[in-house]
Amino acid sequence: MEKERTLKEITPKSQDFSQWYLDVVLKAEMADYGPVKGCMIIRPYGYAVWENMQADMDRRIKETGHVNAYFPLFIPKSYLEKEKEHVEGFSPECAWVTVGGGEELEEPLAVRPTSEAIICSMYAKWVKSWRDLPILINQWANVVRWEKVTRPFLRTTEFLWQEGHTLHETEAQAEEETLKMLHVYRSFSEEILAMPVVWGRKSDTEKFAGALRTYAIEALMSDGKALQAGTSHNLGQHFATAYGIEYLDRNQQRVKPWSTSWGTSTRMVGGMIMTHGDDSGLVLPPRIAPHQVVIVPIPPRKGDWNEQVLPKAREVAAVLRAAGVRVHLDDRDTQQPGFKYADWEMRGVPLRLEIGPKDIEKDQCVLVRRDSREKAFVPLAGLAVEVPQRLGAMQRQLLERARKFMADDTTRVTTYDQFEQVMEAKRGFLVAGWCGDAACEAKVKEETKATIRVIPTEGEAAAGACVRCGKPSPREVYFAQAY
Amino acid sequence: MEKERTLKEITPKSQDFSQWYLDVVLKAEMADYGPVKGCMIIRPYGYAVWENMQADMDRRIKETGHVNAYFPLFIPKSYLEKEKEHVEGFSPECAWVTVGGGEELEEPLAVRPTSEAIICSMYAKWVKSWRDLPILINQWANVVRWEKVTRPFLRTTEFLWQEGHTLHETEAQAEEETLKMLHVYRSFSEEILAMPVVWGRKSDTEKFAGALRTYAIEALMSDGKALQAGTSHNLGQHFATAYGIEYLDRNQQRVKPWSTSWGTSTRMVGGMIMTHGDDSGLVLPPRIAPHQVVIVPIPPRKGDWNEQVLPKAREVAAVLRAAGVRVHLDDRDTQQPGFKYADWEMRGVPLRLEIGPKDIEKDQCVLVRRDSREKAFVPLAGLAVEVPQRLGAMQRQLLERARKFMADDTTRVTTYDQFEQVMEAKRGFLVAGWCGDAACEAKVKEETKATIRVIPTEGEAAAGACVRCGKPSPREVYFAQAY
Repeated sequence: MEKERTLKEITPKSQDFSQWYLDVVLKAEMADYGPVKGCMIIRPYGYAVWENMQADMDRRIKETGHVNAYFPLFIPKSYLEKEKEHVEGFSPECAWVTVGGGEELEEPLAVRPTSEAIICSMYAKWVKSWRDLPILINQWANVVRWEKVTRPFLRTTEFLWQEGHTLHETEAQAEEETLKMLHVYRSFSEEILAMPVVWGRKSDTEKFAGALRTYAIEALMSDGKALQAGTSHNLGQHFATAYGIEYLDRNQQRVKPWSTSWGTSTRMVGGMIMTHGDDSGLVLPPRIAPHQVVIVPIPPRKGDWNEQVLPKAREVAAVLRAAGVRVHLDDRDTQQPGFKYADWEMRGVPLRLEIGPKDIEKDQCVLVRRDSREKAFVPLAGLAVEVPQRLGAMQRQLLERARKFMADDTTRVTTYDQFEQVMEAKRGFLVAGWCGDAACEAKVKEETKATIRVIPTEGEAAAGACVRCGKPSPREVYFAQAY
Repeated sequence: MEKERTLKEITPKSQDFSQWYLDVVLKAEMADYGPVKGCMIIRPYGYAVWENMQADMDRRIKETGHVNAYFPLFIPKSYLEKEKEHVEGFSPECAWVTVGGGEELEEPLAVRPTSEAIICSMYAKWVKSWRDLPILINQWANVVRWEKVTRPFLRTTEFLWQEGHTLHETEAQAEEETLKMLHVYRSFSEEILAMPVVWGRKSDTEKFAGALRTYAIEALMSDGKALQAGTSHNLGQHFATAYGIEYLDRNQQRVKPWSTSWGTSTRMVGGMIMTHGDDSGLVLPPRIAPHQVVIVPIPPRKGDWNEQVLPKAREVAAVLRAAGVRVHLDDRDTQQPGFKYADWEMRGVPLRLEIGPKDIEKDQCVLVRRDSREKAFVPLAGLAVEVPQRLGAMQRQLLERARKFMADDTTRVTTYDQFEQVMEAKRGFLVAGWCGDAACEAKVKEETKATIRVIPTEGEAAAGACVRCGKPSPREVYFAQAY
């Protein structure tokens, strides 16, 4: 009954995807709404997921030679205005501090929407010689973009992210860095979030304000819409020029460096939720689950569970912890097992371990996988090996399932009729030719709400005709409606 | 020559302590000034120190049962105003966002100076039953307080910190939590930063705006001034009342919980620098040093160091890394060893490992300790044991030295003449009686710039007379001038 009550609180995914998402985020206590519109609270359970993601991403960023630093939250208006396209892109979204210490400020301060302006100003001061290059700095920070329509994790006024900002001697090095980080994001998304992506370059319409070239990874959500999950920008010499970064090169000439920036954010949490969740709630990939295993002890029909069950449950927890598994023992005596099952299912814990007096007699326990509901009786003696194996299998199979979904929901089309039909019916990725003209891109968007998500830059190029105008297309691109 | 040049850039500590501090912070690239007054940039080397501190503090916070979460940066004006003392204390220091998304906001938003207001508003929504208690949440975040006089790390407009916010059923539990976290801070400061502290309660004049009782740890800097390095507040039921937090207790009565908050910040980095640094620059305690050992390979008089020295230097680095030591191999071929010695001394690396062709012949290397300059020839075979031992010894001895300094600079006085003389001459902590009257406290501050840093709450109370008015003093307190 308790189980039913809990489940009833979540709108079925097939009935209303958007409401399902909000129900899951709120009921599983991943996030909550705060008093300021669009600013979410990341609750402890959601933050623990973010911490696991952050730890792994931070490791990847450091392994590729970057170091962390911290730059100020506030950017003076005049600094933001130095790069023309940049300020045009971000100024409308800014929150402005106009009063500080009880006095009107002489110059308004933007709460950073991104940190190119402030970081490049400092680089102009720090970089003097080619020996100072490359500069490979990353920052973990909060940023603010005034959004009209918001949704927890997916689009929030304030969000948490990492932003890398690098300087290089040559254009080729900057391009190499941009692509290197794109692939760090791709492999993070696939290996850690079990969230497959397509990747490639953005069209000029969709690129970052001030960038030379923007690359992105894009995931496909179960409602057939794409989610931009990470971007990497080759900024050319635009910002070096705007912020006056110059150095003496190997030939003692004053020259400008080439810069890049790249970022991923708490938005990835939202993508992960939408990729794996089901009608019972969250399904968390083991590699980021705060609890990989929850132990639910079953009370004896008569007698004291403190004597008959809990000691063995604690022993099992200790064995698993020693094997490097994140375990939670749910020893609440205020709730029945049925309630606990539904509760932890909603929270997406990968493996449930049930153990009661009869199991203990047989030196076994019951393992239930969250995604497949597969149930197995497993001898206690083998748990330290069996549990990590099952977690590994679940991580792999979540990715495989998501890959299959993405493949099934990707349609290659050659005519605009087909394009419109598919975009009307099941959506998903549409692979089609594009002539390269922004006018065609704009018409497609107006007529079908679909935008070019990425122009693939790897693999074989399938030349053909533009799906909208029929002119030659150098290669197929990915269209989709997007978050 | 290079060494002299580098050293010349740092003002001697004894000549001008304040300038010495700024020189060290800037030259060692711990921090830099940004375009907004009072907002510092934490450069990669300084941030790496902060990351090491953060990792250890985070572990201690979690081990005492707390979880992390994230609450919004912006606090609506009306929320801040709910607790009267709190708003009076913080409102003058606030930065206000008045424009967002191109429009004037209906209600100004404070950039959080601290998060009681926003967090307690959420707790009012989340807490319903005694089963929901205790709530033990911590947050790592940036906060902003508009400061008139600022100094990197010690007092900055924006700073990074952790702030814990907890709710409890009883006053006794809240008090226990407050003191537990005070001691977490004390042991962190001593064990990790090698920075000894005194601790105790704050007088009512010095307590946190809105608190029932504030406790603090206070360190003593080499200029004889105290630095408040961490505070822990028992907030009583003040915030529960102001923000309407109520729950059904074990007897089904609607009651208010008791709350606490506690915080430490990037200020601790400044305290650590001032505690250990010397005329050559930083001295970093091994437990927080980004590089615990720097290897400086000595080039051969003739021949190629790539053949004769670097392979062995790399081997040594690998051996030490395998032993869990953070090692940096300085293989720049653009600088001489002398420059490197001075450079890494300035950056406070605990151990320098010199290795050249002659050392390699003898299967040895030279180890030089940063604090004592002690030099030792050590066989390569024993390094994996020898280096961690020396790092451990240095960590202990830094604490011992700082403890001795603090003891030598703590003076027990019984007359106000003595008090004024010592506060005029060498400063430091003055242990003296106090009647408990805020008027005496204010006079002492006006006349000597000294404030009551803490009223000890542990150990034996030495009763006596108030050093200012002669009335009975229940116990001695610590006075000092403070940062």
